[in-house]
Amino acid sequence: MSRLLVRDLAQVATPAGATAPLRGAALREVDVVEDAYVLVHDGTIEAVGRMGDLGSLGEEVEELDGRGLSAIPGLVDCHTHPAFAGDRANEFALRARGATYEELLAAGGGILSTTRATRAAGDAALVEIVARHRDAMLAHGTTTFEGKSGYGLDRDTELAQLEAVREAGGVPTWLGAHAVPPEHPDADAYVDWAVEHVLPDAARIAVAADVFVERGTFDVEQARRYLLACREAGLVLRIHGDQLSEIGAVPLAIELGARSIDHLEATGPEGVAALASSDIVGVLLPVAALYLGRPMPPGRALVDAGAAIALATDFNPGSAFCESLPVVCTLACTQLRLTPEEALAACTVNAAHVLGLADRGRIAAGHRADLVLLDAPDWRHLAYHLAGDVVRTVIREGRVVHSRA
Amino acid sequence: MSRLLVRDLAQVATPAGATAPLRGAALREVDVVEDAYVLVHDGTIEAVGRMGDLGSLGEEVEELDGRGLSAIPGLVDCHTHPAFAGDRANEFALRARGATYEELLAAGGGILSTTRATRAAGDAALVEIVARHRDAMLAHGTTTFEGKSGYGLDRDTELAQLEAVREAGGVPTWLGAHAVPPEHPDADAYVDWAVEHVLPDAARIAVAADVFVERGTFDVEQARRYLLACREAGLVLRIHGDQLSEIGAVPLAIELGARSIDHLEATGPEGVAALASSDIVGVLLPVAALYLGRPMPPGRALVDAGAAIALATDFNPGSAFCESLPVVCTLACTQLRLTPEEALAACTVNAAHVLGLADRGRIAAGHRADLVLLDAPDWRHLAYHLAGDVVRTVIREGRVVHSRA
Repeated sequence: MSRLLVRDLAQVATPAGATAPLRGAALREVDVVEDAYVLVHDGTIEAVGRMGDLGSLGEEVEELDGRGLSAIPGLVDCHTHPAFAGDRANEFALRARGATYEELLAAGGGILSTTRATRAAGDAALVEIVARHRDAMLAHGTTTFEGKSGYGLDRDTELAQLEAVREAGGVPTWLGAHAVPPEHPDADAYVDWAVEHVLPDAARIAVAADVFVERGTFDVEQARRYLLACREAGLVLRIHGDQLSEIGAVPLAIELGARSIDHLEATGPEGVAALASSDIVGVLLPVAALYLGRPMPPGRALVDAGAAIALATDFNPGSAFCESLPVVCTLACTQLRLTPEEALAACTVNAAHVLGLADRGRIAAGHRADLVLLDAPDWRHLAYHLAGDVVRTVIREGRVVHSRA
Repeated sequence: MSRLLVRDLAQVATPAGATAPLRGAALREVDVVEDAYVLVHDGTIEAVGRMGDLGSLGEEVEELDGRGLSAIPGLVDCHTHPAFAGDRANEFALRARGATYEELLAAGGGILSTTRATRAAGDAALVEIVARHRDAMLAHGTTTFEGKSGYGLDRDTELAQLEAVREAGGVPTWLGAHAVPPEHPDADAYVDWAVEHVLPDAARIAVAADVFVERGTFDVEQARRYLLACREAGLVLRIHGDQLSEIGAVPLAIELGARSIDHLEATGPEGVAALASSDIVGVLLPVAALYLGRPMPPGRALVDAGAAIALATDFNPGSAFCESLPVVCTLACTQLRLTPEEALAACTVNAAHVLGLADRGRIAAGHRADLVLLDAPDWRHLAYHLAGDVVRTVIREGRVVHSRA
C-alpha cells in the first residue's frame, strides 16, 4: 500500500490525554491543529502536523484535498445490537400513545418479538442485515463497531448473530443473557442451559460477554453465575445495568472486574462514586433514554466524580433505532451536559478501550488510520449540527470507504 | 408536462381529516393505502389508489418504481431562520458547560452576534446560504419551507434576507422584531423605526410578520403595536411566544387573530385551554427545547384539549441547528407524546395551513404533487428511525428534485 496525504485541513482534532480510559480533566483535552495535514502509510498514521511543517515527501503519495474540512478520529460505537430481523415501528407508535410495557407485550412487542423474527430469518439474511447496518454506521462516521447477539437465545441463532457481526468486521459480544426465551421455564434454567450449550462455541467467536441485569430479567445472582462462566471461558465482561432500576449491577461489575457497565440511567450518587473509584467504563446510551422517555444517565456527575465514560448508540429495533454517533454527541452536549471535547473522547478513544483496541480512537502517529472528514471548518459541528450532513469522507485503515458527493 | 406514475408502493400514507387546521381526533386520521400508486399530471396529483384498481393509462407515462417504499406528502417546515451568516458552535460548546445567558453574551454569543455576521455577509452570500439550507431541508424531505428575517435588524439586511428566502422558493416572514439592535436606544424606539422604515418594503416581499415576545426583548404592548401595523400592511400575524416565560403572548395572539403562536415551552393549563378554543395554530419546536435544555412544549396536552398544532424545526444557528423534520417527528413521538399520525399531520397539512397554502400537505387528487418516498415499507419509519437515511426520493410539483443512490 502507498501513502495518503490528507492536506490543507482546516482542523485536525483528536483526544489528547494519556492512557485510556480517559477520565476527569483528561477527557476534555482535545488537541486541535489548524491548517493541518495527516499522512498515512500502509493503513497507519505516519504523521500529523501543520501544513507549514510538512517536508517534501520523496516517494509517490496520493493526495486528498481537506480545504474547508475538519478531521476527527474514526468514531467507535462500543454498544450496538445490529443482528435482528423485522422492526418494531408498531411498538414505537404504541409507546408514543403511552402504552405500558405490559400492553406492548400483549400487542406482540418487546425483545422476544424480535427473537421470533430473528430466529426465522436464516444465517444469510443476518449477514446481509448486519452489513447493511454497518454501512449505515459508516456513513455516520463509525469505523469500528461492536455488535451483540441476544436476539437468538437459542444456540444456532446466537452463533449466527456473532458470525454475522464478525463477518461485517465488527467486534462480537455474546449477549447470551438478554431475555429468557419461552422454551425455558425460568431464568435460572436458561442461564444453566446457555452456559452449557452456547458458551463454548460463543467464546470462540466473541470477545466479550454481556448480561441484562434488571428486575424481571436476570438478577444479580443469575448474572454472577453467567459472567463467572464467561470469564472462565476467556471473555471480557460487560453488563447492561441500572437502566430502569438499581438492583446491584454496579457492585457486581466492580466485584467481577467488568470492562464496562452500560446504561446507568437509574444510577444514583453512590453508584456514581463507586464507578469513579473503579477502572470500569460507564457506557452512556442517551438515545435509549430518549426513546423510552426515561431520565438521561448522569453523564455530568460521572465525569465530575472522575469516572471514565464512553458514549454509544445502543442501536436496536426496540429502544434506539439510530445508527448515528453524531446524534449521540448532540444529545450528550444538550442532555448529559458534556462538552463537545468530552463527547469526542467518549466515542473514540474511550470506546476503543471498552473494546480492547488500543490502536485506534486518536489521530496520532502509529495509530490505525481511521479518520472522519467533517464538512465544516470547526470539528464541533459533529455535535452542533443535529442530523446535519456533516460526514463528508470516511477513511478506514487508510482507505476511503465512504464519501458523499 | 407529461404524467408520472409512482407504482407498486408498499404504502401511501396521508393525513385524512377535513378542513385544515386539523385538531383532536382528526389529527390522528391517516389514510394508509397498501400496494398503491400515485399518478401525477402537470405537477398536480391526478389520482391515488391501489395498484389493482389502476386502469390502463392511454398516453405516455413516465414510471417510478416504488417497491419497498412508502410515500408521504412532501414535508412543510413552517418555522425556520435560514438567512444567517457565521455559526454559533462556540456558544453551543459554552452552553454544554453550563454557561449562563449572560456568560454567552459576554463571550460574543446570542442573536446579535449573528446579526453582526449577517450584516457583513452581503446579499449574494445570503442568497447562496439560504439556497444551501433549502437543499439540506430538501434532502430531509421538506418541499415547502418558511424562512424568517430577523438577523439583519436594519433595513437593507432585513430586505435582503426576505429576498433570499423568496429566491430560494421559500415563504418569507418578516421577523422585524426579533431583537433590538445596538444602534437603537430601546425596544420602543426600534419598533417605531422598523414600522416606519422597513415595514413598507418588507410587506411587499413577506407573507407574514413575526415578533419575539419575551422578557427583555419585546413586551406585549410593543408587540401589539408592531403587529397592528403589520396587519394594516396586509401581513398575516405570527408570534414567538411562551418560550421562556408566560407574559401574555397567548392572549395577544387571540386578541389580534394571529395565524400561529410558536414555541409554547412555558405555556400552562390556562394557555392550553385558551388556544384550544381559538383558531390559532400552536407551532411546536422540540429541537429548540432540546438545545436549550428546557422543558418540552405541552404537545399532548394541546392535542388532548383540542388545539390545532404544527411541528417545525426552528432551524437557526443559536438554538436549533437542525434542518431535519424527520428528527422533529422522532422528538414529537418520544418527548411530546404525540403519535406518528399526529406528527405527520403536524408537519404537513397543518404546517401548510400556517403558511396559507391549502394546495399541499396531503396526497389527494387536486393537490400539488409534493411527495417523499421513504426507504421503508412502513411510513412510520419517518419518526421511528432517528437520523436514519429514510428519505430516498423527493418529488416537488411532480418533478424528482432529490434522490439518493
